[in-house]
Amino acid sequence: AHPVYANLPTTVFEEMSGLARELGAINLGQGFPDDPGPLAIRQKAAEEVLNGYNQYPPMAGLPGLRQAVAGHYGRTQGLDLDWKTEVTITSGATEALAATFLALVQPGDEVVVFQPVYDAYLPLIRRAGGIPRLVRLEPPHWRFSRAMLEAAFTDKTRFVVLNNPINPAGVVLPREDLELLAEFCLAHDAIAICDEVWEQVVFDGAAHIPLMSLPNMRARTVKIGSAGKMFGLTGWKVGFLCAAPELTHALARAHQFLTFTTPPNLQAAVAFGLDNPGDWFTAMPTGLARSRDRLAAGLTAEGFKVLASQGTYFLNVDLAASGVSEPDRVFALRAVTEAGVAAIPVSALYEQDPVTSILRLCFSKGDATLDGGIERLAKAR
Amino acid sequence: AHPVYANLPTTVFEEMSGLARELGAINLGQGFPDDPGPLAIRQKAAEEVLNGYNQYPPMAGLPGLRQAVAGHYGRTQGLDLDWKTEVTITSGATEALAATFLALVQPGDEVVVFQPVYDAYLPLIRRAGGIPRLVRLEPPHWRFSRAMLEAAFTDKTRFVVLNNPINPAGVVLPREDLELLAEFCLAHDAIAICDEVWEQVVFDGAAHIPLMSLPNMRARTVKIGSAGKMFGLTGWKVGFLCAAPELTHALARAHQFLTFTTPPNLQAAVAFGLDNPGDWFTAMPTGLARSRDRLAAGLTAEGFKVLASQGTYFLNVDLAASGVSEPDRVFALRAVTEAGVAAIPVSALYEQDPVTSILRLCFSKGDATLDGGIERLAKAR
Ligand SMILES: CSCCC(=O)C(=O)O
Ligand SMILES: CSCCC(=O)C(=O)O
Repeated sequence: AHPVYANLPTTVFEEMSGLARELGAINLGQGFPDDPGPLAIRQKAAEEVLNGYNQYPPMAGLPGLRQAVAGHYGRTQGLDLDWKTEVTITSGATEALAATFLALVQPGDEVVVFQPVYDAYLPLIRRAGGIPRLVRLEPPHWRFSRAMLEAAFTDKTRFVVLNNPINPAGVVLPREDLELLAEFCLAHDAIAICDEVWEQVVFDGAAHIPLMSLPNMRARTVKIGSAGKMFGLTGWKVGFLCAAPELTHALARAHQFLTFTTPPNLQAAVAFGLDNPGDWFTAMPTGLARSRDRLAAGLTAEGFKVLASQGTYFLNVDLAASGVSEPDRVFALRAVTEAGVAAIPVSALYEQDPVTSILRLCFSKGDATLDGGIERLAKAR
Repeated sequence: AHPVYANLPTTVFEEMSGLARELGAINLGQGFPDDPGPLAIRQKAAEEVLNGYNQYPPMAGLPGLRQAVAGHYGRTQGLDLDWKTEVTITSGATEALAATFLALVQPGDEVVVFQPVYDAYLPLIRRAGGIPRLVRLEPPHWRFSRAMLEAAFTDKTRFVVLNNPINPAGVVLPREDLELLAEFCLAHDAIAICDEVWEQVVFDGAAHIPLMSLPNMRARTVKIGSAGKMFGLTGWKVGFLCAAPELTHALARAHQFLTFTTPPNLQAAVAFGLDNPGDWFTAMPTGLARSRDRLAAGLTAEGFKVLASQGTYFLNVDLAASGVSEPDRVFALRAVTEAGVAAIPVSALYEQDPVTSILRLCFSKGDATLDGGIERLAKAR
């Protein structure tokens, strides 16, 4: 096997979901909703599977979906994407990331990456020949500073990868932080690869700002979105890859030999959902914020120290501040095996110098699941 | 962009389908059926989308589908795959190929590849750092010889890629050819990457023999299959990646960061189809053979010289032997623009020293489409 893969563990999300399935535990680990997802979208998919087209759609995606994506980002984020030259549909955001790294990164290119890091990034960057430069973010605020960027950017920097809203941190970056990062991209002639899959999952009036919308960033940003996260249908694996025409041209070349295309029935249903959202994009985050609050209140009542969450499906517990002296991974393994509740130890998302006191909990669940999870976490404590 | 992608054209299949869509031409280019696919399988998918699970399935695929794949290959090809350690579900065979090359090929490894070559192979091999060694096959028989393999295999050969049944040739390789190739794999300690997506689409009593079933090949073969080709649902993008446990371990590591997983609704429906095939795997090839014969007879009556097709959706016309002096690509562009029928110029599938007289036609179409195609091809002549 290639050295990048030879010693790679199974992703921590799969590891914990596997344990939860095996042990019948409550799963507050991997990020997916309990809710089956919008009925109208699933009905549209069912209709397409039965009476629609089940053969190869165009490689770049159904025109109707590419238009719907451009329309959605126009309405919600003020972006002016041309669907024909700037939008590609992928088999999930992971494929969009893979296509981007494989298409753009050349051996020796340095890629600035923030820790905690979604665990697909580093293997993909390395397999493409890139050299990651890590910026370490810390709780409780998880913000980067000018000094941190200065230490990471060099004259070999070609890319920076930004996940915003940030998983696992639950942070929605304010404009000033984005401006700081854009300043470094421009100064170093670097391309920003923006994993914005949580863009619709933001709470309390916070607004997601796409990095692409900042001055002079339009031509040097790749924006990645996810229908699975937007509509709470994480298994559907329909991703959006948006970039200026020249970049899109290269990305599409990589995409065509990674999956070639994405099921047209699911694409058509996602297009329907984007074109007919009703109140989904306000009701969904409102419901999730209620679940977040329920989980936070319950954990606080049990003596856990909970960090703020402005976005994503996730809430973090500071174990050390909660009187738990075990490292997060030890606690997480004990919690799933002994108390029957799965969570993500955030140290798994650091490659160097891990923060070992943070446990990530997924709150996109029904009340009974959340209440059961709180009870079991209290027992594990 | 990375040099592998910088100058890469759009795949010829997409190019020709795009022209067909634009010009309203009859599309005998890209391989997909007119038929909507088995109703029972589509009904199962619709039910799963409506009432089943739409969140992340396990990374390696639904256990039910992995078992169904192992069961199917046990019944139809005598293979003894252990579903837990030897079967991974991917987002189509293209993703299976990408995962295989990225997981296994290291910079400098030589990879033996046959021309005409499915156009995903070479970019993927090169992006992984491999060095392709081409073996050139020729019409009308498209067979390789000992001398051809001796010229291609060196002491740096680590892999050979075999597409069997062969697209575009329509050849189902006989056991003696497979034995010859296995001999070279064993002598050179090479791994065979077998793209067997057409395994169920064989005619006239020909039998597909998986290379994996040959003596001593079990541990050194990666076998790739496709639900899309098996069931004529090419848009579904559900692939099968089968290999011995040690290989599967590495392949799964690459897969987890390419797409992570594949829609569970489509996976469940494919499992249902494999477990309940009825007479599909005899009726489907029987119907296709009838269509092949109709196309062959019609073309022959119009003075075209048609080559034999024992498998795949494809029939080849020898243009030179049909009195067409234009190169295949020129004829194909003229046929789609002037006569309204799209086909694949096989020269597009050679990287070096192309055969330029072969036009590939897809016959997985209704009678009216085939008849219209024949008429239009005759007009283009
Ligand atoms: C692809 S599994 C991980 C899903 C996810 O986004 C998360 O749990 O962080
Ligand atoms: C992925 S498009 C090509 C489909 C196919 O197998 C062919 O037409 O050869």
